[in-house]
Amino acid sequence: MVIYNDKINRGYQTVPPHGGNLVRASLEYGFAPQDFLDFSANINPLGPSPRVLEALKDNLWQISHYPDPDCRELKVTLAEHLGVDPSCLLVGNGASELIYLLARVFPFRRALIPAPTFSEYALAVRAAGGEVKYIFLDSSRGFPFPLKEVLKLLPEADALFLCNPNNPTGGLVTCRELGFLLETALACGSMIIVDEAFMDFVQNPASYSLLCQAGRHHRLILLYSLTKILAIPGLRLGVLVARPEVVRTLEKARDPWSVNALAQVAGVAGLRDRAYLEATREVVTREREFLFQELSSLPGWRPFPGTANFLLVDITNAGITAGELTGLLGRRGILVRNCSNFPGLTEGYIRVAVKGHDENLRLLKVLGEVLQER
Amino acid sequence: MVIYNDKINRGYQTVPPHGGNLVRASLEYGFAPQDFLDFSANINPLGPSPRVLEALKDNLWQISHYPDPDCRELKVTLAEHLGVDPSCLLVGNGASELIYLLARVFPFRRALIPAPTFSEYALAVRAAGGEVKYIFLDSSRGFPFPLKEVLKLLPEADALFLCNPNNPTGGLVTCRELGFLLETALACGSMIIVDEAFMDFVQNPASYSLLCQAGRHHRLILLYSLTKILAIPGLRLGVLVARPEVVRTLEKARDPWSVNALAQVAGVAGLRDRAYLEATREVVTREREFLFQELSSLPGWRPFPGTANFLLVDITNAGITAGELTGLLGRRGILVRNCSNFPGLTEGYIRVAVKGHDENLRLLKVLGEVLQER
Repeated sequence: MVIYNDKINRGYQTVPPHGGNLVRASLEYGFAPQDFLDFSANINPLGPSPRVLEALKDNLWQISHYPDPDCRELKVTLAEHLGVDPSCLLVGNGASELIYLLARVFPFRRALIPAPTFSEYALAVRAAGGEVKYIFLDSSRGFPFPLKEVLKLLPEADALFLCNPNNPTGGLVTCRELGFLLETALACGSMIIVDEAFMDFVQNPASYSLLCQAGRHHRLILLYSLTKILAIPGLRLGVLVARPEVVRTLEKARDPWSVNALAQVAGVAGLRDRAYLEATREVVTREREFLFQELSSLPGWRPFPGTANFLLVDITNAGITAGELTGLLGRRGILVRNCSNFPGLTEGYIRVAVKGHDENLRLLKVLGEVLQER
Repeated sequence: MVIYNDKINRGYQTVPPHGGNLVRASLEYGFAPQDFLDFSANINPLGPSPRVLEALKDNLWQISHYPDPDCRELKVTLAEHLGVDPSCLLVGNGASELIYLLARVFPFRRALIPAPTFSEYALAVRAAGGEVKYIFLDSSRGFPFPLKEVLKLLPEADALFLCNPNNPTGGLVTCRELGFLLETALACGSMIIVDEAFMDFVQNPASYSLLCQAGRHHRLILLYSLTKILAIPGLRLGVLVARPEVVRTLEKARDPWSVNALAQVAGVAGLRDRAYLEATREVVTREREFLFQELSSLPGWRPFPGTANFLLVDITNAGITAGELTGLLGRRGILVRNCSNFPGLTEGYIRVAVKGHDENLRLLKVLGEVLQER
């Protein structure tokens, strides 16, 4: 891949800004995409498992054959890994394909979305002609989940989208709280969509995850992602868990080969690498605590205690906006997520991925320099 | 990848049969997927370009970063290759993603489809709630394109789907005929969708291709595929060419990262390998003629003169059904396409991909054995 220049910025589609857009960063800051230290996307800091890389090299021949539309081998592996029946699984070209698929097959006229959160839920609902009602989380109290308010508003909505743990705040909703929500959803006929894209990074997921229930409950659809935990966002791999009839309805509404062959290979190899998955949780927990302590010590910086592989930081009192900071770091080859385009956040918030120790040290060093120079 | 067994055939989704489903063939015939000689999928017989394989190995690092949602480098390469403005291009996760996207964003209440043809047009239209009217091509006359009948029915339809050259018949519609159709479409407000997935294999494409017009005409949407010509169906890569406002409308209705990073890398490297693209056309033309002659000499076999990298064969008078033949070959590790599930065809038709000379000889040898043994 080359360093991008203005010539190729002309006439191309423009999607809303997200983290991890290295090509756009390359256009803006002049580094080659691979030369950035990227804290703007929340990917497993260990990088892809060596077993995944090996499996991809061994299976490169698969590119010249159609992918298995039934994702059989991957579903076997997933069903065992998640403890669900394979008939409850729908594999997607990233969780984002599944979010858009859901929003158009079950056209939600009115979706409830606690915010700030991952922006694609709202975009998918609106693309399908639905209306979004945000419930804004209270920043002054650390963005706690407003159970009572959500329970009160749920009967008026067709759907509730919940990111658990929440991106970008790191907030968690407990199984007990989710139980109340599901009772209400059952009573009033709404659907609850829980996105557990980052659950693999959480300590004690049993207290928060509904994965093993999702195939049985009439009002629950669960989203899961292998993109983040296996560090393969470039290959795309997401999973939906729901009752078999929901899965069948969804799969009829999309093209049969949406999950490419190499993503299937990577998913199988990655899920079988238990040591890698365990090491990930250890590294993330240790480095998240380290990064939290260090960022807390910067004048005016207020990181929120995270639960996954990222930290939201309030820099409102740090004398610099998220846009300014992002720019100063970008020009030094470091990317962090400017959170000002999250509904419910302002120019005073950034999100920082938790990476390996050396990379975190490098971020802190450059941050120190940048803040001193101003 | 393993040899598949019954255990993993339980509880998985089942998509309608298509060519190239090696996992399903493995379940049925007991060979490992990679051990089949596959004439059931119409892929470039040269296999992926060595430059593509090299580029994939060099860019494996990209799997741990999000793909460029704007597909910038690929669009630059495509725009130059096709001679169209980049603003007229939408890249997809295979052409099939784009077919389903089209059918739901422009909900065609009534779509006209000359048949037999690629089955996903009808499936996509119906999945979006539309109705399909087939115009059946006359098998006794070699499936010629029924221009007059299509012109007559077009005013009643919202859309006409045309596969050019047509899969599985190999029939071609000329630019002159397409001109008449576009005039009528403009007058009566229907949309014409031309799928040129196999145009790269055709001799003298200038007489048939509308690629360079597609970005300008109000009533024309063109589909193009890199999956077939670059032999990368496992990676998925399709292209849509239309007016910029159509492209913008479509891209808003789908998730931003549908085209994975390795597909983008493969597309760029493949399109730059001009020698490979030229060699492909030569090999396909030569081998198609060879295969046509040889199959014609089998008693009761009537191949239709193809124009791309596949041949439709009428075996009605060969004393064997497509199902029987497919089974006999499958048990010997050779796959051909049983065409009996194409609307407009019967148990008397198979489709055979044009492969390299040695592979074609192997098919002919095994065919001879199989037919003699009966």
